[in-house]
Amino acid sequence: MILTVTLNPALDVTYRVPRVELHASHRVREVTQLAGGKGVNVASVLHQRGLQVVATGLLGGLAGEQVRADLDARGIAHDFAGCRGETRRSVSVVSETDGDATVFNEPGPEVGPGDWQAFEAHLGGLLQRLRPAVVVVSGSLPPGVPADACGRVVAAARAGGARTVADTSGPALLEALAAGPDVVKPNREELAAATGERDPVAGARLLQRSGAREVLVSAGADGLVLVEPAGAVTRARLAEPLSGNPTGAGDAAVAALAAGLALGRETRDTLRDAVAWSAAAVLHPVAGHIRPADIDRLLPMVRVERTLPEEASHADPTA
Amino acid sequence: MILTVTLNPALDVTYRVPRVELHASHRVREVTQLAGGKGVNVASVLHQRGLQVVATGLLGGLAGEQVRADLDARGIAHDFAGCRGETRRSVSVVSETDGDATVFNEPGPEVGPGDWQAFEAHLGGLLQRLRPAVVVVSGSLPPGVPADACGRVVAAARAGGARTVADTSGPALLEALAAGPDVVKPNREELAAATGERDPVAGARLLQRSGAREVLVSAGADGLVLVEPAGAVTRARLAEPLSGNPTGAGDAAVAALAAGLALGRETRDTLRDAVAWSAAAVLHPVAGHIRPADIDRLLPMVRVERTLPEEASHADPTA
Repeated sequence: MILTVTLNPALDVTYRVPRVELHASHRVREVTQLAGGKGVNVASVLHQRGLQVVATGLLGGLAGEQVRADLDARGIAHDFAGCRGETRRSVSVVSETDGDATVFNEPGPEVGPGDWQAFEAHLGGLLQRLRPAVVVVSGSLPPGVPADACGRVVAAARAGGARTVADTSGPALLEALAAGPDVVKPNREELAAATGERDPVAGARLLQRSGAREVLVSAGADGLVLVEPAGAVTRARLAEPLSGNPTGAGDAAVAALAAGLALGRETRDTLRDAVAWSAAAVLHPVAGHIRPADIDRLLPMVRVERTLPEEASHADPTA
Repeated sequence: MILTVTLNPALDVTYRVPRVELHASHRVREVTQLAGGKGVNVASVLHQRGLQVVATGLLGGLAGEQVRADLDARGIAHDFAGCRGETRRSVSVVSETDGDATVFNEPGPEVGPGDWQAFEAHLGGLLQRLRPAVVVVSGSLPPGVPADACGRVVAAARAGGARTVADTSGPALLEALAAGPDVVKPNREELAAATGERDPVAGARLLQRSGAREVLVSAGADGLVLVEPAGAVTRARLAEPLSGNPTGAGDAAVAALAAGLALGRETRDTLRDAVAWSAAAVLHPVAGHIRPADIDRLLPMVRVERTLPEEASHADPTA
């Protein structure tokens, strides 16, 4: 089974408005509230694909209760530790004219040292009880948790024998590398912010110099780029780009990766699924949701291309 | 004492972001949550000016509890009826670069017939117990309440001997006129939407043909325009315009009007205060808040000009 860890989950609130205008006052036509946050989206997609998954992390306050209630309603197994602050909201304002979203992410609750220690004990208990094949740690850190929080989750999961995926950004990503996650999955912007390098392969190699093993870069319509420690590069993308809601597309790719790792596959052999699941998420208006039929239809449209290190050095004499 | 009625109060949530951009994702730096809604703002300003006031209306769900908790923290007396749905949030996104706000108002909870009947009984009890000199009914209607809800509040208040002010818009404003509120206070845009007339005096006269008595129009930096049933027009404004946060400025004007009516003054004799309170609200960054020292400083800067019907007809031969 797969355990997803979301340290800073959210209540995802969507406001539908006729049109979004800066500095104007808007009447919201429709409000929807769903459990959200990157690891929760991963769990949701895995659940929709019929895989056994448990979502954990930190939840607090009234918004935290709403997240639990929504996970219950959707049948997604969860076991979160509590914290004293209030779980954040993430407000997406969707314009009915163009479907585009303007998003406001609250920072998250202030987590005290006591809350964090209680979470680590809770996670230790879960790892012992569930013996997950794969642990995914996703998303930002709420204020007050240690800077190496994702790394600590990875270390605990590896000690329990799980394969590990870290999907985070900024200092949390760099701090996680020392714990040796099997795969890190920044998107192109996160990779550029962490390394100063916009080219996915060059950025991934910089992360590997800082301790990363496999680096999977999600590059929007350009698909996925996997850089392995020995230098092989695998690129996977749809033959033709799609339009839709990109929020949660990276989470669906991570879900496919985790599903493959749980079945003992290599990361490179999960990329076709990862692109199809990610594209299916783009086609669904709600983050963390996919229609299985979309995946089946999209799979034959994925193009995968693998370049071994020798070929890469032939192709690029400066490498 | 003064009773304010807010049928669709809100939890006013303010997000501070470095800059607001359409179709972008924003990290919110700071979140504040306060009790809000027009009638709640009126009560807040009256409380800050040392007047006895009680806030009532409909509150529901977790957001409703947060509204009650904030009113308690601010020492504002309240006695709301409950409803099954969740009180709405109103999200103001404030850009740190220019201080401008982009506002998203949720529609409010679906109020069932049982909730509405219970509210009317609750209001009846309050009117008997408190014997308010003035009742103010403010703001929009949540889905499901009768279209003439504001009119029913006005009728109940008048039957109890109170003077009444209705500050609402659209169909709720037109429906309230039949109940005979002493004053209605649309802003210029609301008046134009209700009557098709952009000139405040001409629009007010159209409202009077539909049954309104005194019409007080708030016109932003152009100040206040009062049109009495016999045709006298009083205009009041600051000698020089101010810049600041206009949200809640109209509510502060209504608070001054209600305070004056409670002391037995005529509406026209409250306009100097109403402009100064309104301007003080503009100077305060938070809706529903004023600094009393600002009012004292601003009062001498208010210019009031009264035109009697004969003069008005001399000045405008087409009238």
